[in-house]
Amino acid sequence: MKKKAVVLASGGLDSTTIMAITRHGGYDIYALTFDYGQRHKIELKAAQKIAKYFGAKKHLILHIELDTIGGSALTADIPIPQERKLKEISSSGVPITYVPARNTIFLAYALSWAEVLEATDIFIGVNSIDFSNYPDCRPEFIESFQRTANLATRAGMEGKEIRINTPLIDMTKGEIIKKGLSLGVDYSMTHSCYNPKKDGLPCGKCDSCLLRKKGFEEAGIADPLFDQ
Amino acid sequence: MKKKAVVLASGGLDSTTIMAITRHGGYDIYALTFDYGQRHKIELKAAQKIAKYFGAKKHLILHIELDTIGGSALTADIPIPQERKLKEISSSGVPITYVPARNTIFLAYALSWAEVLEATDIFIGVNSIDFSNYPDCRPEFIESFQRTANLATRAGMEGKEIRINTPLIDMTKGEIIKKGLSLGVDYSMTHSCYNPKKDGLPCGKCDSCLLRKKGFEEAGIADPLFDQ
Repeated sequence: MKKKAVVLASGGLDSTTIMAITRHGGYDIYALTFDYGQRHKIELKAAQKIAKYFGAKKHLILHIELDTIGGSALTADIPIPQERKLKEISSSGVPITYVPARNTIFLAYALSWAEVLEATDIFIGVNSIDFSNYPDCRPEFIESFQRTANLATRAGMEGKEIRINTPLIDMTKGEIIKKGLSLGVDYSMTHSCYNPKKDGLPCGKCDSCLLRKKGFEEAGIADPLFDQ
Repeated sequence: MKKKAVVLASGGLDSTTIMAITRHGGYDIYALTFDYGQRHKIELKAAQKIAKYFGAKKHLILHIELDTIGGSALTADIPIPQERKLKEISSSGVPITYVPARNTIFLAYALSWAEVLEATDIFIGVNSIDFSNYPDCRPEFIESFQRTANLATRAGMEGKEIRINTPLIDMTKGEIIKKGLSLGVDYSMTHSCYNPKKDGLPCGKCDSCLLRKKGFEEAGIADPLFDQ
């Protein structure tokens, strides 16, 4: 029997690369996506297409009310920062697009599902190189969550650690894209933009679009999103 | 301005005592309750009454789909253990009423809301003395979650710790009830049973009913639930 992995799947570039890595690693994939009131709800459709493409055994889309809690430009009526310099994105503190405790909540659900499935692994596409200074994307957060997870669960009490895997954490966006391409990822399926236009096309100006653009430039290929 | 506290409020005996302690401590109370597909949904009504009684500034009831994930007698079609000996409850491993990663999920939401409210404190009524061997009620879990919370949030990055408070963690059920009575708690408002009868009365046989009974015996008073 194959090992089972819960894969956090946002429909974005990073989590899609993660799904390719998980499939390549021989896992049965249990994809987990959140409808959390994000303004870029279009990413849910991308996540569905991608989970299907990678042959996920199951794909759960949980509705969670982070918009009731608010406090972020992604979940409340706060403007999305535009056309920031890459240097500014990576060095000017935690931006307004940070969703309070989002990855703690996402990982807590992944942990719950992993325990029920008797999965050995959770995969999450966090990255701390070309990232937006979100505190919950840093390796020290992930390491601490791993210790908490071991103490939180029956599995942990019984010595069966559920591992939190972050294979992209030290990679640049360009390296992530090259890795994905080597594993056959079709990035035209992915969605990254925080603030898509009505027709679903990316705005090209938000931090997420700018980091994606940097990645394709580094990888030396055109973003297939714009070839369609 | 008063300090703000997010209080996890289940409508049960422990969390109601916690709410009295928080009020006594001079906090503005932000009560947080989860409709998570629990079979004892009646506790939500108790939580509403109690939050109102203690003058909570706001009471959020979040709908979260733990029943979609399942894996527990509280959220799936699995029988509730009945008439276990107290010794068995406290020593026979993690019971089937354990909901995988429930307190990790609850605390993650509390952390998110606390960060948005700029609250300094979270209060949770976990107890590791007269308890059901849930891994996520132990002090080592709470301590680890505290470290994770500091790393997960903008508040933590800026050196503003959001403290996780567990004033009941080392108390017996009898001590908890005596503490609550000294602060004016009316325990007839609370609901503890996992498997209530159709008229809402407790079954008297589940672990939660048995631990409650032990508490009132130790406190030397009758449970006001049965005086009505």
